[in-house]
Amino acid sequence: MSSTGPVTLDDIRDAAARLKGVAHRTPVLRSRTVDGLVGAEVFLKCENFQRIGAFKFRGAYNAVSRLSPEQLSRGVVAYSSGNHAQAVALAARELGSSAVILMPEDAPESKLRATAGYGAEIVTYDRYTEDRTAIGDRLAAERGLALIPPYEHPHIIAGQGTAALELIEEVGHLDALLVPVGGGGLIAGSGTAATALNPGIRMIGVEPEASDDTKRSLEAGHRVSIPVPRTIADGQALDTPGELTFSINQRLLDDVLLVSDDEIRAAMKLAFERLKIVTEPSGATGLAALLAGGLPAGVTGRSEVLPARIGVVISGGNIAVPRFLEVMAG
Amino acid sequence: MSSTGPVTLDDIRDAAARLKGVAHRTPVLRSRTVDGLVGAEVFLKCENFQRIGAFKFRGAYNAVSRLSPEQLSRGVVAYSSGNHAQAVALAARELGSSAVILMPEDAPESKLRATAGYGAEIVTYDRYTEDRTAIGDRLAAERGLALIPPYEHPHIIAGQGTAALELIEEVGHLDALLVPVGGGGLIAGSGTAATALNPGIRMIGVEPEASDDTKRSLEAGHRVSIPVPRTIADGQALDTPGELTFSINQRLLDDVLLVSDDEIRAAMKLAFERLKIVTEPSGATGLAALLAGGLPAGVTGRSEVLPARIGVVISGGNIAVPRFLEVMAG
Repeated sequence: MSSTGPVTLDDIRDAAARLKGVAHRTPVLRSRTVDGLVGAEVFLKCENFQRIGAFKFRGAYNAVSRLSPEQLSRGVVAYSSGNHAQAVALAARELGSSAVILMPEDAPESKLRATAGYGAEIVTYDRYTEDRTAIGDRLAAERGLALIPPYEHPHIIAGQGTAALELIEEVGHLDALLVPVGGGGLIAGSGTAATALNPGIRMIGVEPEASDDTKRSLEAGHRVSIPVPRTIADGQALDTPGELTFSINQRLLDDVLLVSDDEIRAAMKLAFERLKIVTEPSGATGLAALLAGGLPAGVTGRSEVLPARIGVVISGGNIAVPRFLEVMAG
Repeated sequence: MSSTGPVTLDDIRDAAARLKGVAHRTPVLRSRTVDGLVGAEVFLKCENFQRIGAFKFRGAYNAVSRLSPEQLSRGVVAYSSGNHAQAVALAARELGSSAVILMPEDAPESKLRATAGYGAEIVTYDRYTEDRTAIGDRLAAERGLALIPPYEHPHIIAGQGTAALELIEEVGHLDALLVPVGGGGLIAGSGTAATALNPGIRMIGVEPEASDDTKRSLEAGHRVSIPVPRTIADGQALDTPGELTFSINQRLLDDVLLVSDDEIRAAMKLAFERLKIVTEPSGATGLAALLAGGLPAGVTGRSEVLPARIGVVISGGNIAVPRFLEVMAG
């Protein structure tokens, strides 16, 4: 698979240079237990240890870092009730800018507090009666703020791709790479890096069963929308792939696997009990797909003698203890 | 404080050489959140990422590795329902020996399974009517097994000391080191390494409030027994310090801090939500003491301008999800 397109390996290397000393170079965990269960050598790139607890900081920082000094002094705006909110808030603070984050007024108190804790101004809206895009556009126009989208931008995608760049730089050749798919920015960037560094790698997306918009879109050959998904993997509960991300993913992805909420729970439990790490549901879907044994034929079994080498991006670990208790109780 | 005694820095270096490539060189985590809360630079040595999920593998492997080939072929025996059981089982397997582990018949199913999973033979006893020491002695005599004690042996203590050796080799000078105290092997070994490498370091033990046998013994100037303690920190629920470990700790420890079960819960929650790591209650007591603000005067505030540099050993992370839910529910 080739990686020419709106985002290139050079863009990702450039993002990596900007992130150096700012983002964490997150650890790659190995586990004899996981290797044994899967029958392969598994390399877990742990973005739950990234700043703000998820990969989102990579893209947000790369995007904000490219704004002009004038724009940085006016500030940025983002819509998010999740990890992108904290990522943009922290990126703005690190770069001497300021952030306005639009969040639904019924967002969890812990997320509101965490985002405000990074110095952002929170503007809440009623998601049943108000249109956040209209509010955001008005704020952006009135105050001259730059909108930082969660995935639909080459700078965001290039930033997220640094996760796979670091992984392959550290561990070398991989036969396959599994990456959770929400809006598609993480896998578009990671796929761009991985296929350029490691031609022939199998790029495998993972979606929750209820949120299979990218899988359906790939099968249809164009973007399709699904009903608003219900899944514990809230970070992936999107109903349509991004336009830019889909155009990249259509080119780079070999397959998309689906995991059930129970499979996600089992992966979170294994991560907790055996790896001693905290994963949020979306963060654990790649591991869930691997443990559920859903790899397509030809991915495992690199050869008769060597086990396959499989990378998995653990994309985040932001889950409060009370929510973890709820999720585990099923 | 000097480190001459039954265990020396050379013994610990020798243990480190034996453990190389067998035990994990566990990561040292930093956290802006923790540094901010404590007002110091905090270095968390994460033994929850050690093999079997706790520091115990270090001492067990060092001790088993020193047995003669004849003894290795006859096998080893240990009494434990906790991390020492799995540590001895795995050490024996790694060294081509075999292990018999004596466990109470009402030990948690998960611990029985985990220990058997490392290839050990489990012998259960009724802890209300049978004397495990008598059973162990009989087994040892009949089969010629070598008893591997959990802390009362120089090889065990030297092995545990490799945790602090690695920490100080990696991060350099520390003003203080906080270590959980159960039987006292981890802190005796860690204190031996730390005071030899870093004279003037403040060695601080941490016990659960209900299990303050070492603190009381230090105050009394001799070993005292307390009623059987009730605490969520089961790995530290001992009623008397070890004889050998106490003789070392009496010489090396500057202080012992006490933490309540609620303070331990708060530390486990912070480790989960902010550090994204799983800690068992005993594993989190050092962090709990730090967060509870109990450091003695003179430990923080290295100077007017530099913050203190404080090491903390996170000693283990073996807790099943259902037990974690119970502990968190309080």
